[in-house]
Amino acid sequence: MAKDGKLVESITSRETDFAQWYTDVVKKAELTGYTSVKGCMVLKPAGYAIWENIQKELDKRFKETGVQNVYLPMLIPESLLNIEKDHVEGFAPETAWVTQGGSQPLQERMCIRPTSETLFCDLYSKDIQSYRDLPRLYNQWCSVLRWEKTTRPFLRSREFLWQEGHTAHATAEEAEERTIQMLNVYADFAEEVLAIPVIRGQKTDKEKFAGAESTYTIEAMMHDGQALQSGTSHNFGDGFAKAFDITYTDKDNTLKYVHQTSWGMTTRMIGAIIMVHGDDDGLVLPPRIAPTQCVIIPIRQKAEGVLEAAEKMAKALEANGIRVKLDDSDRSPGWKFADQEMRGFPMRIELGPKDLENGQCVLVRRDTREKIVCPIEEAGAKSAELLNQIQKDLLERAREFRDSHTYEAFDYETFCKTVEEKPGFIKAYWCGDRACEDKIKEDTRATSRCYPLGDKGNAPEGATCICCGKPAAKLIYWGRAY
Amino acid sequence: MAKDGKLVESITSRETDFAQWYTDVVKKAELTGYTSVKGCMVLKPAGYAIWENIQKELDKRFKETGVQNVYLPMLIPESLLNIEKDHVEGFAPETAWVTQGGSQPLQERMCIRPTSETLFCDLYSKDIQSYRDLPRLYNQWCSVLRWEKTTRPFLRSREFLWQEGHTAHATAEEAEERTIQMLNVYADFAEEVLAIPVIRGQKTDKEKFAGAESTYTIEAMMHDGQALQSGTSHNFGDGFAKAFDITYTDKDNTLKYVHQTSWGMTTRMIGAIIMVHGDDDGLVLPPRIAPTQCVIIPIRQKAEGVLEAAEKMAKALEANGIRVKLDDSDRSPGWKFADQEMRGFPMRIELGPKDLENGQCVLVRRDTREKIVCPIEEAGAKSAELLNQIQKDLLERAREFRDSHTYEAFDYETFCKTVEEKPGFIKAYWCGDRACEDKIKEDTRATSRCYPLGDKGNAPEGATCICCGKPAAKLIYWGRAY
Repeated sequence: MAKDGKLVESITSRETDFAQWYTDVVKKAELTGYTSVKGCMVLKPAGYAIWENIQKELDKRFKETGVQNVYLPMLIPESLLNIEKDHVEGFAPETAWVTQGGSQPLQERMCIRPTSETLFCDLYSKDIQSYRDLPRLYNQWCSVLRWEKTTRPFLRSREFLWQEGHTAHATAEEAEERTIQMLNVYADFAEEVLAIPVIRGQKTDKEKFAGAESTYTIEAMMHDGQALQSGTSHNFGDGFAKAFDITYTDKDNTLKYVHQTSWGMTTRMIGAIIMVHGDDDGLVLPPRIAPTQCVIIPIRQKAEGVLEAAEKMAKALEANGIRVKLDDSDRSPGWKFADQEMRGFPMRIELGPKDLENGQCVLVRRDTREKIVCPIEEAGAKSAELLNQIQKDLLERAREFRDSHTYEAFDYETFCKTVEEKPGFIKAYWCGDRACEDKIKEDTRATSRCYPLGDKGNAPEGATCICCGKPAAKLIYWGRAY
Repeated sequence: MAKDGKLVESITSRETDFAQWYTDVVKKAELTGYTSVKGCMVLKPAGYAIWENIQKELDKRFKETGVQNVYLPMLIPESLLNIEKDHVEGFAPETAWVTQGGSQPLQERMCIRPTSETLFCDLYSKDIQSYRDLPRLYNQWCSVLRWEKTTRPFLRSREFLWQEGHTAHATAEEAEERTIQMLNVYADFAEEVLAIPVIRGQKTDKEKFAGAESTYTIEAMMHDGQALQSGTSHNFGDGFAKAFDITYTDKDNTLKYVHQTSWGMTTRMIGAIIMVHGDDDGLVLPPRIAPTQCVIIPIRQKAEGVLEAAEKMAKALEANGIRVKLDDSDRSPGWKFADQEMRGFPMRIELGPKDLENGQCVLVRRDTREKIVCPIEEAGAKSAELLNQIQKDLLERAREFRDSHTYEAFDYETFCKTVEEKPGFIKAYWCGDRACEDKIKEDTRATSRCYPLGDKGNAPEGATCICCGKPAAKLIYWGRAY
């Protein structure tokens, strides 16, 4: 029975209305909370704890590559934002402006950072003098603000949390190497930790970051077949360096411009977790990112020995490195099952008087509902094993889903029909012209997600553009996207 | 030899000019960096790494008391800020206002959070319905903005990093208990981790937080004798609950107001570490907060076997849980010593060919410069022991300094003279009248820092106010403050 006597409320099914299902899960799993600040998000404990785990895992991986954390101001004076032309054009339309500080109007208005390239350039222009000062490998964890018109929790909100890495290098090669290195850090993290398979690719000029020479991306497929851009890594070449005059004296005593990169991942990934793994009973969290990995639910908990056994079991699981919670609240077991399922904790253990008699307990997987009877003394080791299995299976299942929803098209009619009727990725050749990209978007609402890294992204001889029929340059993954 | 052929530059001595010494240390230890955003701070890797350690230690302690992390918006609509009268009066003069979002002027302007009481109240008013929903023990890590006129790195800047805890309770007693509990968490953290002894006390009405019923504080003494308010914990009673209509249905089915607290600690503590432990050679970091605890400096590192031995030693220290760095750069040993001292890393190990011959190395304490010769194979265990000793000694030394700079006064002339001539704390009785507090500040620039918790803060029978001579109510710690 629920809090006020009701059973746990059910949610809209994914088939009925995927968008409503998403909203229901976010709310019922208590990931976000109420705020009267329009377009902004409140991350409640269940949502923020996922973000903390994302931070911990990413931060460790960044530091292993030599990255150091810093913190820069949240405000950018307008004159600083205006220095790099493409960059300001890309971001000015969606910035929020501070015009008054204390009781005085400001002499120069400042925007709340939508991203911090300009601030890092400002710092680097003073900080970097010699080749000895390179590379600079800085990252910051913060929130940014972009004045979006329509918003959805995690996927698009005016303020969101992220990390932004900003590096400066002596050579173009080093910058390109770092750009790809960080893309791979994101891809490995998404696959290993979030169990989300991703396409590693490069953005077309139309879709690249404002001010970047090239933008790399990892693209994931949600359960409704739509794409989610999940992490990006940009190579700026020396464009920002020239605009901000960031130079260093090289070993040969000549003055050179640095080459820069930036790369970011956001709270959007929580949306990805929901939409890749969730089901009609709620959230399904991959074990490696789940704040609680196992809930122990006592059956007839007032019966002799049950709670004691459950507590002992919780300790055994902890000793196996499992993040475990014992739910000894005064709800019914049925309510607790539904609650654990809604919150997406990867497994539960049911333990009642009969189980105790038989020296056993029941492990239940969140993802498949499979029940596994297990001797009590083996619960710790068995749970650890099961969590590993769940992690693997979630990735495998998501990969199968994505692959079975990835199509090819070699003529425009099939292409348009596929976009309309078969949600997913469509691989199709493209000539490289912006006009075709624009037309495809207008005709189908599908955008170019990316072309695969390296040779795989190049169209073979004789391939033709899906739109205009001219010789193709690239193999593009197309899809409707969040 | 330094980077460009110079020796490590020296800094102003504390005796000569304490403020300049502070600025020199912050700059030369590379804790902060350049920014053209006036009044704001750039935390560079050396500064931010200290903050990360502060976060880690505090966060662990918060969670042990049941606190959960959340994230709320950075913007506060003006109407929300205006709801609690005392609160808005306290903060409105120093807020920054966003008046434009995207290309449109906002219908209602919003301020960047100077603190988030109003946002938490907004959330709690929707989120809390029943006694089952209490207590709420939320905390957030974020930055806040207050439009200060004069700023100094870490001590006072427009934007700073902090955590702000916000709790809601069923009863006044529970709220008071939580307020004191968190004050003690701060005090224990300051003493155990930062090696900074603190006075735990309560603020007078004049000095309490805007909107609070009572404010508790920990007060530390800097090396120049000035006080630094180092953490505060506020009991709001049901004042905010009434203003924001935050009620719950109790077990007896009646509607009641919640009782709330908030508590915060900031990047200011990095300033405290500098000003309590630093010396004329630079920063001195307590081992428990130091990002690097030991630097191994090879002497004649190109000589056979030296670097190999140094690397082996680094591993041995790591195995002892020590955060160690091997400085194998191409600087001279003398430069490296000065650099390690400037950055405040608590100890170094010197290791050269002669040491290798003798099977020994030299451990050097940053705080006392004491040199300890130690067999190479014992370096790991000995260093761990030494770091513990340094941690203890720093606290002890700071406590002795504080106690020997804490004075008493029983007449106003002595009081004023002491403030002027003997920088430190002065304990003196006070009648409880705001007028006396104001006069003391005007005459001496000393403010009431706090009165000790519990009975110790009450003046004994017969004690008289240092200012007006009327019967005293409280024993106050007075001092000039940052």
